[in-house]
Amino acid sequence: MAETLRVGIAGLGTVGAETFRILSERKDILLSRSGKKIEVVAVSSQDRHIDRGIDLSGVEWVDDARKLCLMPNVDVVVELIGGAEGIAKDIAEATVTNSKYFVTANKALIAHYGDELGKNAEKNDVSIGFEAAVAGGIPIIKTLREGLGGNQFTRVYGILNGTCNYILSEMRETGRDFKDVLTDAQALGYAEADPSFDIDGIDAAHKLSILASIVFQTKINFEAIHTEGIRFISPIDLEFATELGFRIKLLGIAEIKDEVIQQRVRPCLVSINSQISQVEGVFNAVAVEGGDSGLSLSYGRGAGGGPTASSVISDLLDIASNRRVPNFGVKSDDLVARKSINMDGLHGSYYLRLKVFDRPGVLADLTAIFRDENVSVEAILQRGRDPEELVPVVLTTHETNEEAILRSISKFKLLDSVAEDPRILPIEKFS
Amino acid sequence: MAETLRVGIAGLGTVGAETFRILSERKDILLSRSGKKIEVVAVSSQDRHIDRGIDLSGVEWVDDARKLCLMPNVDVVVELIGGAEGIAKDIAEATVTNSKYFVTANKALIAHYGDELGKNAEKNDVSIGFEAAVAGGIPIIKTLREGLGGNQFTRVYGILNGTCNYILSEMRETGRDFKDVLTDAQALGYAEADPSFDIDGIDAAHKLSILASIVFQTKINFEAIHTEGIRFISPIDLEFATELGFRIKLLGIAEIKDEVIQQRVRPCLVSINSQISQVEGVFNAVAVEGGDSGLSLSYGRGAGGGPTASSVISDLLDIASNRRVPNFGVKSDDLVARKSINMDGLHGSYYLRLKVFDRPGVLADLTAIFRDENVSVEAILQRGRDPEELVPVVLTTHETNEEAILRSISKFKLLDSVAEDPRILPIEKFS
Repeated sequence: MAETLRVGIAGLGTVGAETFRILSERKDILLSRSGKKIEVVAVSSQDRHIDRGIDLSGVEWVDDARKLCLMPNVDVVVELIGGAEGIAKDIAEATVTNSKYFVTANKALIAHYGDELGKNAEKNDVSIGFEAAVAGGIPIIKTLREGLGGNQFTRVYGILNGTCNYILSEMRETGRDFKDVLTDAQALGYAEADPSFDIDGIDAAHKLSILASIVFQTKINFEAIHTEGIRFISPIDLEFATELGFRIKLLGIAEIKDEVIQQRVRPCLVSINSQISQVEGVFNAVAVEGGDSGLSLSYGRGAGGGPTASSVISDLLDIASNRRVPNFGVKSDDLVARKSINMDGLHGSYYLRLKVFDRPGVLADLTAIFRDENVSVEAILQRGRDPEELVPVVLTTHETNEEAILRSISKFKLLDSVAEDPRILPIEKFS
Repeated sequence: MAETLRVGIAGLGTVGAETFRILSERKDILLSRSGKKIEVVAVSSQDRHIDRGIDLSGVEWVDDARKLCLMPNVDVVVELIGGAEGIAKDIAEATVTNSKYFVTANKALIAHYGDELGKNAEKNDVSIGFEAAVAGGIPIIKTLREGLGGNQFTRVYGILNGTCNYILSEMRETGRDFKDVLTDAQALGYAEADPSFDIDGIDAAHKLSILASIVFQTKINFEAIHTEGIRFISPIDLEFATELGFRIKLLGIAEIKDEVIQQRVRPCLVSINSQISQVEGVFNAVAVEGGDSGLSLSYGRGAGGGPTASSVISDLLDIASNRRVPNFGVKSDDLVARKSINMDGLHGSYYLRLKVFDRPGVLADLTAIFRDENVSVEAILQRGRDPEELVPVVLTTHETNEEAILRSISKFKLLDSVAEDPRILPIEKFS
């Protein structure tokens, strides 16, 4: 008879219930894949009496999820509660300290404490699995740590937040404004009641920090990420972008150059000819560049019960199969703390949107400032004519540096004819 | 000191040389990833004296590649010679029989002999690695066997041949005809001197048979694949397809329904709104549908030294790390021989292109035949007017079945006004 991997699940929300369901329904195929039975022996959640559509008979119910980490008949604890602190963190630490395997979908936890958890797990001869923490149903952690493990990439980037991508796609297709679409997204369950983690880019930054660690063999450095969200994007921006041959996407990007890393999450313009620009709606995608494999991109659903459970199961299959991978791709001691640079060092092209009073000489003033800052203009678009009223003006630049753009903008603001803070979006180039 | 995984490479063409180079240059990171040194101890190739840009000093040169399988200091043989029979097959069999690991980029070999090789490897407690055999630099084997291993998919499909995809992309963009673009592709090294394996769909069918085996836990059944190539595609088809909102792609598709499998490789129309339609040029992509993870697609380079070597290294990293996966995802005994259906059972929409004499009543004749066969027309496009001369006519149908289409076509051919054999392309629907 096959050995059994005994699982405790902390948190029976959508993902937890779905994980439980798959483990119950596919016992045979999972046994054939891993050589071990995978069995849920204990669960914990807030309310025992909700109907989750799963049969919990024969499974031990534990009121305090922390107890799962101490149960001698539990080999692996799956944490699906969420949050970087509190109970999730307690469980993570206690689980690996007790030499049990830890599996989670919790990106905040890994972004903040992944290094020390990984080290602690290594010391106790177990592992932490967080496939479900980045890009839901896309097995990107396995792809980067193992499938593309021979490559040395120069850049990893992606659409890491389905909520933002859905909102931007909807805004573009319908012309409606941000708040309106956000309200709809909340009604549809694509956005949380408090949406700030998503729309301010924090969730994407959590995921980017994990990807950067694996791709560049470096300690996670969430704090170094420059993070901007999508609140200020207006339908006008999406319209202008389309006209110029771009899409607007919230991207997480991490690059390495001369051993120095730059990480940023912000909305940007990407050419409609790039693969990443084609990712629409709630879908996510992660791409790597610069290695032997060339451009490689993985596309799929970034959230939801099924996709996230799919990744949790993937981690469980690895554990059941005794397949071991260093938590962040290489041993903890080989993860180096690399230097980070901030945004000032960035070079690139930019999109600027201004509201100006439609009067003679405005463009001359703007272009004179750019000339003084040595910024070369690629295109100017002025929509509508409405003398002495506010009209939008968009400028795109050739390659320049971020500092020159920021200096130019602070000068723009001093002009009488410029009505509100200019909006700036980088134009990122991808194949 | 770390243990060493000792590698013998059979075949030092582009992929072999690139694999050798990466293994020499990245010793440290590969050691950190796997816990073992990976060292090439012996190589074999046709000509010892070609300059391959790699330093072979300290590496044993073997004239007969078959000897690698017998060398006591070789743990794994990497076969990069190619061909389903002859030396490649000899090496594969001898390697696993001698309880050595076998790694290959040889899709023909795996498509024809993967089952028995896998079984033999299992018996000898080693594995066969063929990540490089399907879609070059895309780690799709690992993704399907492990990363998405908890899913039960209903369909796997993909652009599995970069040569064909390049030719179709070029034909569409330039309006040039098939032969012309093929000649260019040969000059650029994107197509072989004898291109039939690629352009007749055989190469794609090899890969599809491997994917279907893994996705549906079934024995490889290459013979069951209905295979058509792209020789008959004309620039007119690409033009009409674009006008109708489609791209033409050579797709490999395997589906399962009620435990019965259907596999086909043929050019087809796909909506420009589908993700797969965006894959252009030499790139490959593989997608799966119908599981918990939803639509999941992996995109990357399907051939070339770097990408293919990247996948060879991935297999070597697994071996060095003692990570074991059943060769086709589940144990050999659990691979079932599933029933296959042929094309007659297929349902779908179709695109037909005819050359007809431009005279009154032609469309009435065609549509009457469709009416009699119960085929509902969706669109008719007739380009140009040229009385009594040949003009192209395109018809697309609503959902029907392949048998009715084939019967209609045999009746079309009997019409005086129809000049050459009608061309038929299925319209495949994807999200």
